Amino acid sequence: MISLFAPQGIGEIHKGDNLADIIMASCELRDYDVVTVTSKIVSKAEGRVVAIDHHDEKAFETLILSEARRVLRRRGSLIITETHQGYVCANSGIDLSNVDEGYAVLLPSNPDLSARRIQKQLSNKTGLKLGVVITDTFGRTWRKGVTDVALGCAGIAAILDLRGTKDSKGRVLVATEIAIADEIAAAAELAKPKAGGTPVVIVRGLDEEVFRRSSIAKEIIRDPSEDLFR
Amino acid sequence: MISLFAPQGIGEIHKGDNLADIIMASCELRDYDVVTVTSKIVSKAEGRVVAIDHHDEKAFETLILSEARRVLRRRGSLIITETHQGYVCANSGIDLSNVDEGYAVLLPSNPDLSARRIQKQLSNKTGLKLGVVITDTFGRTWRKGVTDVALGCAGIAAILDLRGTKDSKGRVLVATEIAIADEIAAAAELAKPKAGGTPVVIVRGLDEEVFRRSSIAKEIIRDPSEDLFR
Repeated sequence: MISLFAPQGIGEIHKGDNLADIIMASCELRDYDVVTVTSKIVSKAEGRVVAIDHHDEKAFETLILSEARRVLRRRGSLIITETHQGYVCANSGIDLSNVDEGYAVLLPSNPDLSARRIQKQLSNKTGLKLGVVITDTFGRTWRKGVTDVALGCAGIAAILDLRGTKDSKGRVLVATEIAIADEIAAAAELAKPKAGGTPVVIVRGLDEEVFRRSSIAKEIIRDPSEDLFR
Repeated sequence: MISLFAPQGIGEIHKGDNLADIIMASCELRDYDVVTVTSKIVSKAEGRVVAIDHHDEKAFETLILSEARRVLRRRGSLIITETHQGYVCANSGIDLSNVDEGYAVLLPSNPDLSARRIQKQLSNKTGLKLGVVITDTFGRTWRKGVTDVALGCAGIAAILDLRGTKDSKGRVLVATEIAIADEIAAAAELAKPKAGGTPVVIVRGLDEEVFRRSSIAKEIIRDPSEDLFR
């Protein structure tokens, strides 16, 4: 059985805030919990916030391009970019919601590293075996609507590799690299009240064997050379 | 709080089996549960199984093409198709695992209809308000690994539309159509033991307001004309 809950009372996050301390104060963690944290509060704590006029579309475009390695597609005000971190997403992941007027929040520079920092602090301070997943909300190529995905992770597998595992008929399975970190991110979204303001979700009950060193950059980001649609 | 569990003891499914009865016998459902069901057992119950020599690659390709509206990309033995149902996926969603040697399981012809049939029977027999999501495992364009997505749904929103909702700063949110059915499908995967053989997962604790008539075909399948990457 898996359970998910969103600790309440995590207030506004500012540059320099210690997210591990804030998370620990908001809930009682247990061994083998996964703590999901939205990239937005990670960016705010890390100071990845820049001043921008919310009504200046040209300035927003310049900002999007400055966070991009390349532009994949454009349609109207929507720009699909490949970010410096390697994500393919809308507007380089820059979002103007839930931030003070006059500011924009950029994606964390290195979400795997952010996850590792939070995970290490949480583990050291609690003595527990924990995973951390940094989440954000991305669109999908062929399907409407957005889902939460993992931008970074630590202490929990990004990919659960079942290659070599046998199916119920005793035959070896193919195509069985499960993006468990993305499934954790998507699941966490279900535990958030619609009104928002819940940047952390605890996922409890995952198999102990999925807790290991890992990285979204290394395990999930597809190299452009392997890509069929870029 | 959201909880997910996989009822045990659902055996092999055969053509004509009544999935609603089988699900009800495997667990105690409650009001506002969502029942996720893998497309594989839906297809088996509906007789969407064809004979094929597992070692005949040409026959497999012919089968893939017969289930496709068009081919988007090819690389080696991998064929990315748009299926007759409108999904973009590998090999028209045809999988040779967890099926008897000599057979292939096709995707259900109309997973929204399959979901509606199961949901109606479950609701009528239990008197409960329930949702049903038919799931399958798809790859992603830009990210490695696979995640479970919703092929069909009934009684539960495909998209949770937050357009017009205000953020914590009181500003109206943009780009907030959450593909909740896909997040439910991904979450359900977390509750399945690695060895497989658990085609049903119950998702408990979702907001009552997300229970409504809906359809993956109408709400989630992106029309090719709106598509930036086809």
